[in-house]
Amino acid sequence: MSFSVTVLGTSSALPTSDRFPSAQVVNLSERIFLFDCGEGTQMQLRKFKVRFSRINHIFISHLHADHYLGLFGLLSSFALMGRKHALHIYCVKELKSLIDFQFKYFFDSIGYEIVYHFLPNCSSLIYEDNSVKVSTFILNHRIQCNGFIVEEKPKEKKIRKEFVAEYKPTIKEIVNIKKGDDYVREEGLCISNNEITIEPERPRKYVYCSDTSYIESIIDVIRNADLLYHEATFAAKEQVIATATQHSTTLDAANIASKSNAKTLLIGHFSSRYKKLEPLLDEARSIFPQTILAKEGLRIDL
Amino acid sequence: MSFSVTVLGTSSALPTSDRFPSAQVVNLSERIFLFDCGEGTQMQLRKFKVRFSRINHIFISHLHADHYLGLFGLLSSFALMGRKHALHIYCVKELKSLIDFQFKYFFDSIGYEIVYHFLPNCSSLIYEDNSVKVSTFILNHRIQCNGFIVEEKPKEKKIRKEFVAEYKPTIKEIVNIKKGDDYVREEGLCISNNEITIEPERPRKYVYCSDTSYIESIIDVIRNADLLYHEATFAAKEQVIATATQHSTTLDAANIASKSNAKTLLIGHFSSRYKKLEPLLDEARSIFPQTILAKEGLRIDL
Repeated sequence: MSFSVTVLGTSSALPTSDRFPSAQVVNLSERIFLFDCGEGTQMQLRKFKVRFSRINHIFISHLHADHYLGLFGLLSSFALMGRKHALHIYCVKELKSLIDFQFKYFFDSIGYEIVYHFLPNCSSLIYEDNSVKVSTFILNHRIQCNGFIVEEKPKEKKIRKEFVAEYKPTIKEIVNIKKGDDYVREEGLCISNNEITIEPERPRKYVYCSDTSYIESIIDVIRNADLLYHEATFAAKEQVIATATQHSTTLDAANIASKSNAKTLLIGHFSSRYKKLEPLLDEARSIFPQTILAKEGLRIDL
Repeated sequence: MSFSVTVLGTSSALPTSDRFPSAQVVNLSERIFLFDCGEGTQMQLRKFKVRFSRINHIFISHLHADHYLGLFGLLSSFALMGRKHALHIYCVKELKSLIDFQFKYFFDSIGYEIVYHFLPNCSSLIYEDNSVKVSTFILNHRIQCNGFIVEEKPKEKKIRKEFVAEYKPTIKEIVNIKKGDDYVREEGLCISNNEITIEPERPRKYVYCSDTSYIESIIDVIRNADLLYHEATFAAKEQVIATATQHSTTLDAANIASKSNAKTLLIGHFSSRYKKLEPLLDEARSIFPQTILAKEGLRIDL
């Protein structure tokens, strides 16, 4: 299964001429999940050639303007493009009021159903299908702010082709071997499971931590992420304002990545005061070398 | 006085990867008037280096999403940037409800006053200062849609320097000469006004016609524009859909420019179906040769 993350926006509350507000796309074999939807997200989706019709699940971390203002235009465009299939929005309940209030001025009917899933103020599984689950957890910001985890479900072992060709196991035997059984025949033949199977790929895990101060309580739930996105609004020397606004510094993000054993840390949500971002990257890498900078259009394959 | 128009967005309801929704900036010697404010306007303002603090008057033509959704982000950014001085918004009264409803979730106080001027459903003078006036008129769209005219007030004649140096007229005489009087002295000297004055520059006029079908009733009020912006959502062959959606074709815009004796016609609000815009330009020029295409970042000095 392909599993990629594309960054659409990297600014904090004030966008810049080249940094858009928060939005990230997770593409799971062409099922597209959108995380946050800052102003201009629909233009960024077009720019980076994300297919609108594949977006069925939108997750909004919190109700600060730079994380959801693009939703009205995107939902409006869905309607104009003739969308018929349901859209699932995961958000706090107040967002429904904002959407309803906007839409009563434009549309008698938008032509498709919006299914709301209101986010709890605690850790919870919020989406599940055959291969993937999405769960939420609580960050530490000025208002309720939900982080998200997208992880693959554990996959079955694969059976070696040569074994199948030679021994022609029954369906029932195949099911049991995939679960870990050895291959045993009545005449006494026994082949150990690890000789006839290939270990499945490790389930991959993406974590989205939008606006938050440094908070260690998230470490357990986000542990072992292949890709951890963690906001790094400020440089280390701006610790006072980071604390006051409940945002993170580069070092906060790097420490969380290190303590949670992330494979790669992606930092973003940069304050507009930083024209050049390399110094922020250097700071984070001083603690967590596998750090990369979020950039509009950056695609990461997990 | 400098008088320029900068285009920030040229798309119609569906933006494209390189066309943003409607917004235009009129810069009158660094007093900046914003006409419409589609999604992403604040990013475009930054990209084209328009100073936020100079924007004191925003005119919203109508309540379709592609003409106002950028307002929430812009107003929010004003607050975050510490704006203290009042902002004047010219719009239909329903927009105030939308703004109030958004802001009650974010700000106890935005820190600056918004002064609303509700647009009438008829022609009217809506703004006036020493050198400029702005008036509105009614276009023909699916909901109330206001066009806008920015025009300089007539200027006084200038008195030739050589005359002042030689004859040293009094303040009262200068005032009278500027009004058109000849210069007459008691001893019988009389110099005719046109020998000692220079005719003032003709007052310049910019007209903004956002969403509208072809409507001849506007011709009288928009007559003799130096720059007429008129939407041209569709090519001529799309007349049926233009009529159904109450938009204009290239030929509609060109005919209005021709009949109203515009100096230059600027067309925009292009449907996303058009990848290349030159054929639209060619169509309009077949009727009105002084037509130009709106493009993000295009600046026109009147």
